Parts: sequence; C-alpha cells; structure tokens
Amino acid sequence: MNEDKLHELEKLFQKDRYVALSGIKIEEVGDDYATVGAAVRPDEHMNGVGTVQGGMLYTAADFAFAVLTNMLHPTTVTQTATVTYIRAAKTDRISATARELACSGHNCVVEVTVRDGEGVTVMTGLFNGFISAKK
Amino acid sequence: MNEDKLHELEKLFQKDRYVALSGIKIEEVGDDYATVGAAVRPDEHMNGVGTVQGGMLYTAADFAFAVLTNMLHPTTVTQTATVTYIRAAKTDRISATARELACSGHNCVVEVTVRDGEGVTVMTGLFNGFISAKK
Amino acid sequence: MNEDKLHELEKLFQKDRYVALSGIKIEEVGDDYATVGAAVRPDEHMNGVGTVQGGMLYTAADFAFAVLTNMLHPTTVTQTATVTYIRAAKTDRISATARELACSGHNCVVEVTVRDGEGVTVMTGLFNGFISAKK
Amino acid sequence: MNEDKLHELEKLFQKDRYVALSGIKIEEVGDDYATVGAAVRPDEHMNGVGTVQGGMLYTAADFAFAVLTNMLHPTTVTQTATVTYIRAAKTDRISATARELACSGHNCVVEVTVRDGEGVTVMTGLFNGFISAKK
Repeated sequence: MNEDKLHELEKLFQKDRYVALSGIKIEEVGDDYATVGAAVRPDEHMNGVGTVQGGMLYTAADFAFAVLTNMLHPTTVTQTATVTYIRAAKTDRISATARELACSGHNCVVEVTVRDGEGVTVMTGLFNGFISAKK
Repeated sequence: MNEDKLHELEKLFQKDRYVALSGIKIEEVGDDYATVGAAVRPDEHMNGVGTVQGGMLYTAADFAFAVLTNMLHPTTVTQTATVTYIRAAKTDRISATARELACSGHNCVVEVTVRDGEGVTVMTGLFNGFISAKK
Repeated sequence: MNEDKLHELEKLFQKDRYVALSGIKIEEVGDDYATVGAAVRPDEHMNGVGTVQGGMLYTAADFAFAVLTNMLHPTTVTQTATVTYIRAAKTDRISATARELACSGHNCVVEVTVRDGEGVTVMTGLFNGFISAKK
Repeated sequence: MNEDKLHELEKLFQKDRYVALSGIKIEEVGDDYATVGAAVRPDEHMNGVGTVQGGMLYTAADFAFAVLTNMLHPTTVTQTATVTYIRAAKTDRISATARELACSGHNCVVEVTVRDGEGVTVMTGLFNGFISAKK
C-alpha cells in the first residue's frame, strides 16, 4: 500500500463535503485500485428496516471511482454510472474498491465493488469517467 | 397535487436517515410523478469547486424513485440504477422528479430528472425497481 | 413527418450493414424524434421460444438513437447504452422511437422505447452519445 | 476447456436465430467464464467507416452472457444491460468473454469484455440477469 499517495489524495479530496458528511474515508490505494470505507451509523445511514441506504452505498462507490481515476489520470469526473444492488447491507461498516477496466482518450471505465463488514458484495457498479487532460 | 398522499409518504419514509441527513424532502406528488428536493448547503453538499456532489444528486434521484414507486406499487426497492451527469450543478437548490416508463410483473422502470434552482437539468437517471408484492 | 429529411438520413446510413442485415429501416422522423422499425422474421430474429432476441431489439434501439442524434447534431456516436427488457417480444414487427432528454457540450442523453406490433413496450433504453463537432 | 459442456451449450442455443444470422459462435467455456466469437464480415457487420457496428458487439456480449449464465444457473434471461464502447472496432474478428461478478436469489450480475482480433478491448458490459429457477 502507498501511504504517501493516500495522504496526497486525502488532501485533494478534503473539500468534498458530501463525502465528509457521509463519513466516508480513503482506506487504501495501490497501483491499480483504490478502496474507501465508512463505519455505518444507524441514525445517519440506515432506513427503516436496518439496511444501509442505496444513496450511501452509491456515494461510497462514486468516491472510490473518483480517488482511483484522479490518482491514475487527473482530472476525471463521473459521466455515467450504473449500479446494481445485490444484497441488503445489514452491517456495521462498508468498503468500496475501484479498479479500472479500460481507458482510451477522454474515456475511462471503472468497476467498483461495495462490500459489507464481512466482505460480502452488496453492490456493484460500472462508472464511466470523462478525463479532461488528454493522455 | 395531493397533500394527503404527500403526508402519508412522508410518514412512510421518515426512517430513511440518509435522506434526512442529506436534507432531502418530498415536495410534490401527483398521480404519475413524484418530486423531491433540497436546499443546497455548501458545507455539506458541495465539492472543492462549488458544485453539488454526484452522490447527493444520486441520493435525491433514488429518493424520488422510491417515493413514486412505493406510492404506485409498494413495496419497491431499487435493483439497478443508471445515472448520467449532464451539467455541473452550481446552484442553491435541487429537485428530482420521477416518472414511471413501464411496469410489468415484478419489474418497473422509472425515469428521474434532477434539476437545479433554475429548472435546468443536471442529471438524468433510469431506475429499475423490484416489486415484492405481485400485481 | 419530414419525408426529405427521412431520405437524407436513409442515404447517410445506407452503409450500416448490420442494420441492413437485421432488416431495420427508418420509418419516421420529426423535429425531436426518430422511429425505426422491422418486420420480424422468425428464422432470423427469434430464439427457441418464439420471442425476438435481445440483440435485435438493442440494434433497433441503437439505430433509432443514431438516426435522431445525427439528425440533431452530427456526428454523434454511442458511448454508453443501458437497456432494460420489459416484456418478451412475441410479435410480427417491432419499432424503436428515440427522443433526446438532454444535450450539453459533447454529451447527449437519449431515451429509446422499443414496442411490439401492438404498441406495447418491450424494451426501454437510455443512450449516451459523444458528439464530435462542438456545439 | 470443457468440450462436452461446449457441445451441450451449442445444442441449447441452436435455435437462437439472431446469433446465427450474426455469425457468432461459442468458442470456449470454463468453470467460471464463457467466450463467444465471430469472424467479421464487412458486408454484414460494418458501417460506412470500416468499424464493426455497435449492435453486433452488443449481440456478441449478450450471447456470452446467455451462455455463461445458462451454464451456471439455468434459466437466466437478460433483464438489464449497460455497455460502453471503448474503441472503434476495426478488425477481422471479435470475441466476447463473460464472467459472473455476483449472484443472489433471482439476480446475477455478469461482466462482459468484447475484444478485437488483437485482444484489445473494444466494449465492456455489465449484464443483469433474472434467474427463473430458485437457487
């Protein structure tokens, strides 16, 4: 894992207020992946039946995408995202790991897997990013 | 507009803590649409360049979807969602309106448009829902 | 309906061999929509249980998208497409109608509805296009 | 590779006429993946600028998805598919490989990569399937 890179990225994203409001933090970055995570706070993240809300899972996935792509090729913004909810997330923490599947010109495609505290997949996502600086 | 229906739905969703954390409220419901909205709070919703974060826009869209589909055919949960970010949202408020495109058996497809304070579209979404109770 | 425009577009797309192989033709174009369609040929379009194959429905939808967007703002290519199959298509003809939801800079978002011979929706799609010539 | 399994699956899908029309065949199946492919025929698969049409790439991806999922858990049908076109496919052959990312209850999520004759990715897809027989 790359500690310096992680701190650099934390700095880059410190002004992302919605991610901060949601309690999501960068946990780990490597050459080709990035993982973010959050401790689940029932009074802030859950719905009436004790599962983490879809918007929270999405925000974590989108953040993992943002961290990875801006590490690999700044500046990248989310253009389109498709997410599928696999299982209800009844857990005390979540993590989202992003890996790039393809990149060409201004377009990159990233897969993100969101897991619960036991490592079970709760949501998968495919994110398309637009890269402003030409490669 | 249907005030009683709106209050009923507010009650149904009062335990959605992430939506509450995000400051998103139900604004209007009709026979075939539902609109939710939020005042944008810069210190909670924005990123470093003054635009509303993608996760916040998504959460609003997902909530509009949830309100509409649970009004039309409870109980519906989001199965897959595809969202496209059209323009940066530099605004003081957002709204998300959901309309159903199709419904058959356990599957429904809903289109959601998220707009800024001037009514300009900032994000569009296509949501697939799974309906537990058979029609 | 605009006959001249239709013939112009037929000329533009005459080299699309896969669309020709599939028997899909432009049927109608207006200021803000385009409709393509095909007679269903069981020995070419169907699967083992008498329904039109998903790939055929997609190809029709993608063609409707291409016709509309190249009429509105050439040159546009499909970047990402999300389709949902609503009902099995047991029919003798299909049609696909495309309408643009949003357009900004190099990016456009188009909704496409594919219907059977009775006008019942069998597939919906959301297509993201990349526009090469700047607006 | 599993030859018997491949022949079994070829039999299962022999009535898929659109796949046959498109010239797409099953090439390889393993425990957790399935690959289909086609020789590109310019007069049947290409557009005016010498690239394989998007509908053809999609049909190959959808077929790879169908082969894999019906091998793993029949009977599975495509419910939603999201595809992104990465690069223009100027090639003499294409292949599509499907791998399952997650499966739970009636829902499975499969990633499909479509490559050209040199193994370069031209399209990626995320397919959601509905499984009729309960696991």
